[in-house]
Amino acid sequence: MLNFDFHNPTHIVFGKDRIADIAKLVPADAKVLILIGGASAEKTGTLAEVRQALGERSHATFSGIEPNPSFENAMQAVKQVRDGGFTFLLAVGGGSVIDATKFIAAAALFEGDPWDIVLSWGRKITKAVPFGTVLTLPATGSEMNNGGVITRRDIAAKRPFHSAKVFPQFSVLDPTKTYTLPMSQIANGVVDAFVHTIEQYLTYPANAPVQDRFAEGLLQTLVEVGPRLLSAPVPVYDDRASLMWTATLALNGLIGAGVPQDWATHMIGHELTALHNIDHARTLAIVLPSLMEERRVQKRDKLLQYGERVWGITTGTDDERITTAIEKTRAFFEQMGIPTRLKDYGLGAKDIDAVITQLEEHGMTQLSEHRDITPAVSRRILEAAL
Amino acid sequence: MLNFDFHNPTHIVFGKDRIADIAKLVPADAKVLILIGGASAEKTGTLAEVRQALGERSHATFSGIEPNPSFENAMQAVKQVRDGGFTFLLAVGGGSVIDATKFIAAAALFEGDPWDIVLSWGRKITKAVPFGTVLTLPATGSEMNNGGVITRRDIAAKRPFHSAKVFPQFSVLDPTKTYTLPMSQIANGVVDAFVHTIEQYLTYPANAPVQDRFAEGLLQTLVEVGPRLLSAPVPVYDDRASLMWTATLALNGLIGAGVPQDWATHMIGHELTALHNIDHARTLAIVLPSLMEERRVQKRDKLLQYGERVWGITTGTDDERITTAIEKTRAFFEQMGIPTRLKDYGLGAKDIDAVITQLEEHGMTQLSEHRDITPAVSRRILEAAL
Repeated sequence: MLNFDFHNPTHIVFGKDRIADIAKLVPADAKVLILIGGASAEKTGTLAEVRQALGERSHATFSGIEPNPSFENAMQAVKQVRDGGFTFLLAVGGGSVIDATKFIAAAALFEGDPWDIVLSWGRKITKAVPFGTVLTLPATGSEMNNGGVITRRDIAAKRPFHSAKVFPQFSVLDPTKTYTLPMSQIANGVVDAFVHTIEQYLTYPANAPVQDRFAEGLLQTLVEVGPRLLSAPVPVYDDRASLMWTATLALNGLIGAGVPQDWATHMIGHELTALHNIDHARTLAIVLPSLMEERRVQKRDKLLQYGERVWGITTGTDDERITTAIEKTRAFFEQMGIPTRLKDYGLGAKDIDAVITQLEEHGMTQLSEHRDITPAVSRRILEAAL
Repeated sequence: MLNFDFHNPTHIVFGKDRIADIAKLVPADAKVLILIGGASAEKTGTLAEVRQALGERSHATFSGIEPNPSFENAMQAVKQVRDGGFTFLLAVGGGSVIDATKFIAAAALFEGDPWDIVLSWGRKITKAVPFGTVLTLPATGSEMNNGGVITRRDIAAKRPFHSAKVFPQFSVLDPTKTYTLPMSQIANGVVDAFVHTIEQYLTYPANAPVQDRFAEGLLQTLVEVGPRLLSAPVPVYDDRASLMWTATLALNGLIGAGVPQDWATHMIGHELTALHNIDHARTLAIVLPSLMEERRVQKRDKLLQYGERVWGITTGTDDERITTAIEKTRAFFEQMGIPTRLKDYGLGAKDIDAVITQLEEHGMTQLSEHRDITPAVSRRILEAAL
């Protein structure tokens, strides 16, 4: 086991009818800016519930945060926070709204060019406006971690940042808020949480049996619950709750504490989103199976363990078992209605060069737990995903 | 899944050579009271490391916190904290030292009779002196939770308390600090963590698959690592690390979030410790197998799941499988060198009345996830443990 720090101060408020708790969680004298994406928070009534919980507190709303939130748009919100003297932010939405809120919270108090927040991977953040979240779309785990991803449209760059200053103070997780989501977003959430878990698990054995068991537990739960979520004629509370809590636990720092990590799938996927606007989870579903194939040797022991414990694969030669584990992973994504080939998204061999160029420009030239996924290896992964 | 709150702000500092981090974690202007048990913190050099990390900070040491720490002794430390104007406490030891430090931190700022802290189950705590811990004995999980247990010798009462005000600010978990422990304390730690997990898992199905998987992951790890810890001719770092992190995760609020809990084994065990001074973990090993037997009907579904997932029991009738699961649990404790019968500790049928009287006096008359372990049921459990 590797040395680690684990410190996650976010207060999770989980369950039915918990939005009213915001009344106790936001400081009584706060001036609150609510941040939302499109019209759904209003339409579903969630925004009204939030406003009611805020009671007498002064508040306003910034709407229009996009999927893969942009620096340009976030800076509009930063201006509103500064001009309006807002002292507390409240993100109501999914990972995009929460990621943007983290950036806005830091940028509003940042001295200098806020793009430096991203260029420094978040290290230059020294303070942030406090904020909470109301999660409506389980997927990214942003509701209980200190990271975000911001896209700069003018240079087609999608970049992550982290800082201990941008943990949400609280996050309200009400599974019934997922009932109005289109099924494609539920499917995205399942795949996103699955790949988050894999990136902290499928590396090399590090004698960390608890972390392995926890990661496997998340994967097993997604395999069990995912197809049920898709086929249920009406939403089933407990399955929605399991997805929500699983997605949170998949990226709150716990399963990655003390073990090697490999975020190559995410980094390659980010470029596909930045260039072609493919949903984040779908980019992961494209990259991961091909990356597993490419990394059969480096990830051999963990691929065998993954196959046995998550998919029950106990027969065949080691190579056959690994092949089956990869096939089952791809089939699971496809079963969730998420295609796993570049061609399914209208992309071909001619599009790979641009992805590689982007990876090089963004310094993504030594990816993986061994820092040996060079641009040449990323190219092979993408070619295998055609 | 049940509604829940999860909020655990303790900063875990895990790994080799981490005690030096205390220099960054304790406020620079703090006046620090270090709290220890017997002579081992001094002998092993841990105390010297801690003092070195504190650097120029003013500090003193309170030594002599006992196993099953007493109210009477803790009040001596409270007097020292108050008289000396200490602003930060640092517990160096195992669960007893940490539990006592939590009580001392709250009692030092408590207005009125500090025993009211315990009588109110901790609800009357409104503030506490901030504190950190250096864990030397993995077992109780106290290093990352908000609870403690205090014993009042004059009335032979061992009682739990909880408060959000008594989370450690940080806990340093260095697995090498366990190398000097006697093997009996390692065995106690394995059994303590095992039963903590069971009390949050072995109830009735609550459609909380992630919590189940996490709990099973902790149990599987203890079953895997426990015997290796006992038989290793020299300490193996990774196994010590796995025990330490498993014991912490077994009682940091995570696996119990959103699921029913049954603390009957602990409550009955506490009385055995209070009356007969049996190690905490050993009382749990006495009570749990008999409680499982007594509760075969109420815990049927989870006993079958436990048997299959933790012990690999997949054949036989349901009743046979449950019997095997209980036998394997008892055998595991015995394998760890911990006897599971009252007679092994010199107790017999004549001693049961006093335990039942204590349970009644302490209000422990409706134990378990169903609140139906009455004193009469507790008596049957103890009779089955003779």
